[in-house]
Parts: sequence; C-alpha cells; structure tokens
Amino acid sequence: MTAVPLVEVHRGPVIESWHSGHAVVCDTTGGIVDAWGDPEAVILPRSSAKMLQALPLVSSGAARAAGLGSERLALACASHNGAPLHARLVGDWLAERGLTEDDLLCGPQPSRDKELRFSMIRDGQKPGRVLNNCSGKHTGFLTLTQHLKAGPDYVDPAHPVQMACREAFEEVTGETSPGFGIDGCSAPNFATTMTGMARAMAFFAGAAGRGDAQSRAAADLVEAMIAHPVLVAGEGRACTLLMQAAKEPVALKTGAEGYFIAILPARGLGVAVKIADGATRASECVIAALMVRLGVLDADHPDVARFLNPPIRNWDGLVTGEIRPVAGLVRQ
Amino acid sequence: MTAVPLVEVHRGPVIESWHSGHAVVCDTTGGIVDAWGDPEAVILPRSSAKMLQALPLVSSGAARAAGLGSERLALACASHNGAPLHARLVGDWLAERGLTEDDLLCGPQPSRDKELRFSMIRDGQKPGRVLNNCSGKHTGFLTLTQHLKAGPDYVDPAHPVQMACREAFEEVTGETSPGFGIDGCSAPNFATTMTGMARAMAFFAGAAGRGDAQSRAAADLVEAMIAHPVLVAGEGRACTLLMQAAKEPVALKTGAEGYFIAILPARGLGVAVKIADGATRASECVIAALMVRLGVLDADHPDVARFLNPPIRNWDGLVTGEIRPVAGLVRQ
Repeated sequence: MTAVPLVEVHRGPVIESWHSGHAVVCDTTGGIVDAWGDPEAVILPRSSAKMLQALPLVSSGAARAAGLGSERLALACASHNGAPLHARLVGDWLAERGLTEDDLLCGPQPSRDKELRFSMIRDGQKPGRVLNNCSGKHTGFLTLTQHLKAGPDYVDPAHPVQMACREAFEEVTGETSPGFGIDGCSAPNFATTMTGMARAMAFFAGAAGRGDAQSRAAADLVEAMIAHPVLVAGEGRACTLLMQAAKEPVALKTGAEGYFIAILPARGLGVAVKIADGATRASECVIAALMVRLGVLDADHPDVARFLNPPIRNWDGLVTGEIRPVAGLVRQ
Repeated sequence: MTAVPLVEVHRGPVIESWHSGHAVVCDTTGGIVDAWGDPEAVILPRSSAKMLQALPLVSSGAARAAGLGSERLALACASHNGAPLHARLVGDWLAERGLTEDDLLCGPQPSRDKELRFSMIRDGQKPGRVLNNCSGKHTGFLTLTQHLKAGPDYVDPAHPVQMACREAFEEVTGETSPGFGIDGCSAPNFATTMTGMARAMAFFAGAAGRGDAQSRAAADLVEAMIAHPVLVAGEGRACTLLMQAAKEPVALKTGAEGYFIAILPARGLGVAVKIADGATRASECVIAALMVRLGVLDADHPDVARFLNPPIRNWDGLVTGEIRPVAGLVRQ
C-alpha cells in the first residue's frame, strides 16, 4: 500500500497540484479506527513527537523538582513562533535554571513574528537560539539534564536524556524504533510507523484515566498544550487557531515535512497524518478535514476554513485558486 | 497513467518524503523521445511559459520597433530575483517607454536579494512592483500594448496582448488550450499537456534553423536567455547556475508549483517537468538529473550537485539529510 491522494490544489480549470499521504486514527486499545494510505509506513514524526520527547522530563520527576508550571510544559511541546512572548518565557525559564541561551544546542532561527523579525533586521541584531521554534523543548532537555546530573551534550543519541526519550517513545508507540534522523534542532528524531504514532497519540488521549507514571506525565502534557494554544505555536498558526476553534478540548501539533497529530481526550482517539511530499499546506488541510469529519471542528468556522479550504492569493491579493481536501475526506 | 516517483528526501534511516511527477522530452518533430508519468496530464506551466508569452512581443515587430536588445528580451522571459541589477534594467526600460512602476499590473513582491530586502526593511521602504519577479514580462506586455495601441488592462484575457499570447501558445504547443488560470502576477496562464509543453520547447530548440516569423522570434528569445543567465533568474538560482554550468548552450526556466523546462538547441530537444505536489526542490533536482542524463550537465560540477543531490542542513548548519533523484533517472 502506498500514499493516497488527500489534497487538491485548484487554479483555473485544472487541479494544478495534489498531495498524497497517510493518515491513521487509533483508539486507546491501540487498534486502528480509520486509515488512509499505508498504516505501516515508517516515518519521522519530527516536531509532532515533541510531547513524546517531553515525557521523561515529567515522568522522571524533573519537572516537579524544577517547579515547572503548565506554561513551561506547553513550551516543552511547542514549535513556537519565536514571538516576544515565547522568547520571554523561555528566557525566564533558562535564567531560573541558571542557564543562558548559549546552553541551548538548537541553532539560531529568525523569529516568525514579523514585527520582531523586522525590528531585529532594523537594529542589526542576529537571530538567537531562544527564538528557535524548539527552544522550549531544549530547555526541557536541559532541565532533565540537570535533574539527571548528566553532561552538557544533551542531543547526543547516547546521552541519558535521549536514551530516556527513546525508551518513552518506544513504550507509547508500542514499537521498537528502527532508528532516528537528526532533526532541524540537532536532537535525534525517532522513526515509527503511522500506526505507532497514532497509537502513541491515543495513549496521550486516554492518559488522564490512568494512574501509572507515564500516563500521569502524558496527561499533564496534554492538559498543558490544551491550556496554552498560543504557546504551542503562535499567532496565525494552524495548531493554535484550530485548538482554539475546537468544540471540545483537543491537542494539535504540526511537524516538519508534512506531519500533524491530534490528541482527542474526550473520545480516547489519537490521529497521525503524514503528507508524503512534506507539504505543510496539505498537512494543515488534512488535519482540519479529519477534525471536521470527527465533529471536533466546524467547517464553517473562519479559522477552520482558512486551513480546510484556503484560498490561494497572488502578489496583488487576488484569489487565484483554492486548496481542498479530496472528496470523501471530510464526510464519512 | 499517473505521476511517478522522481525524487526522494532522505533523513537518517528513512526516506522521509518523496515527490512524484511527470516529465516529457520531445524532438522538433513534436514526437516524444522519453517520458515519465503521464504525458497527457494537463497542467499550468506557470512561469516556465514566459518565453511563450514573449513570442508576440517579438513576432509582432514591437520589440524591434522599441529597439529591445537581448537583455530586455531575457528579462521578458525571466522570473528574476528583484536584485538591484534587475530593478535598474526594468526601471530603465519602463522609463524609456514613458512608463512607470504604476503601469505594471503585477503586484508588489519583496526582493529575493537578501541585501536589498534587508536594506529596504531597515529604511522602512515597501516592496514595489518593479521588484516582482515578473516585472520584465509585464514590461514586455506593456511594450506590446503600446505597439498595438491597446488599452492599459493588458492582463485581461480578452486584451489584444493576451489574445496574441494565447494564439502563440496554442500554435507552438500544437494544442487548443482547455483554459487558463490566473498567475501569481495576475496574467492569464494557459493550460496544456506535458507533451504540448515539451513540444513547444522543442519548437524553440529548433527555431534558429527556420525562417518563419514565429521561429525567428523564438530563436531571438532563446538566444537572449542563453546570453543572460543572471537576468533570467539571479544569483544562487537553479536556472542561472545550471545554464552557466552547462557544457553546451541550453535555456532553463523554472515555474511555480514545481514546473521546469529546458530548451536544447544543439540537440533539437525540448523538456517539460512537473512535480505533482508543486515542490521546487524536486523540480530543480529532476531538471538537473535529466540534463545529466542527456549529457548537458556534469553531475560532479558543484553547481549541478547542489540541485541534483542537495544536502539538507538544519538551523545549526549540520547536514541532516539529502535530496536525491530516484534510481534510473540520471542514467539511461
């Protein structure tokens, strides 16, 4: 089985481009409820795995020992915009731990916040590491590193932090990972099947009803993401706007190269989406379509429509086309 | 027949993403020499059609009457960077015709030249229409509009300029276009099959050997593109670097949504490439692969390798993956 068409890009009389991919919905038994494409495709979930990478921070007791509140747990799971709010909160967290931006092993990234980015250009400032979309995850890694009294190279796959991440990842995906790629932020990113990832998301969805340490950690992270949609991504972003538009609590998280996940605690469902070609415009469309299909989002909500059926505008602001999910994706 | 896999994106142990598409090579008889995917797929060639849109400018006599040299003909076929060089040459052309930036109907676009873009941000300047990558094409449209004594709305599909573009387009593709989409610059962009586009490119490739007005116009445009690779795109761009690296004269031109064409005068061949999902990283890889396959480019040339097998770097500059053409694409 291979990827199947999921998204069409219309312009004038033709479908100008289209995106194929995989999607899996699992319940808390780990069983597949619905699937498109190949549920056994082995993929890197990229930043959609951040809540998995944050599990050891919480389950180890490091988060409690460091007094991390829900804002910092949300930032540990975030691909944030590097807006002033994110930079300030991560900066405060680092400072409280006696750390600086120089301790972060993610590279520097320009802010996605246009006002801040332009003001830094005007002032001749170079982008820093706190502005990297992964700076919250890395500050979480550093907090766990301190707790474990481990060395500073916390992105080394053999470092205790990454060994703990792998162990947690394999436990909740229910699969031995065949290996890892190095992510945009230099941390290892473990591979798993689409089903493994959807199963892990269902583990998070059902976590609040269970009492073991891993489940309690997962429940805390989901609660933090749902409580702080703006910290998980930022203004104008799909994760943030779709979480805010949802008719019930839901955690949504994008990943590079067309990944997207959803955690639906009220239904005990987990969702994993991968666009085969890596296009974010398509992963955003598909996650919106699946949430509408499940009744979590309303297709007519303007913040849903902008991802479900986004108009394509040209340099003069004219609408020249539209992105649409394939027929049958939104309605069962 | 559907699109076939053409490009793989590797990271760690997995193919993280892949791109499928169509490619057709035609000779000057209009016959297919080689093909991948569906040669009958109907697609918008976007900016890969700019030399078709410039045909009436030359064949009408407007270019000669306005004394356009090869630099301006190259700009008429360009998707340029909006670097200072491009802005100056288009600005001079407009001024000579008694026109200003306000006569251009393409929207404003920030310069792709980082130094200029940053200096405009520092100075609080808004991007202008001369910086739009299509400003040369539009100045060509305006030059033809003046020659035809037509009205100012030259992007209207019923305007004499666009009627002439459609006629030329259908003549050299050998097909009646099923319709048009509105392009990023607000001009109509006519649809044709992959074979139609490859046939049109072969028409350009063989044009210098023929004496009719359309062929003479095509020959002038190809010669101008080959003479001015930096004007057709700009510093660091695939069109420019691959034309400069070629072992024989060749015209290469990218288009939005994963289109790319090649015109090979020495062989009388035309090539059309479309990545189904619209990814430029893949269209650049495929056009480089096909040029290596045909012996026009050397795979070991650094400016070829950067598009044929580009490393993927993360925010810290580490190589984390690689883009590769599928096995069998480079070698026959």
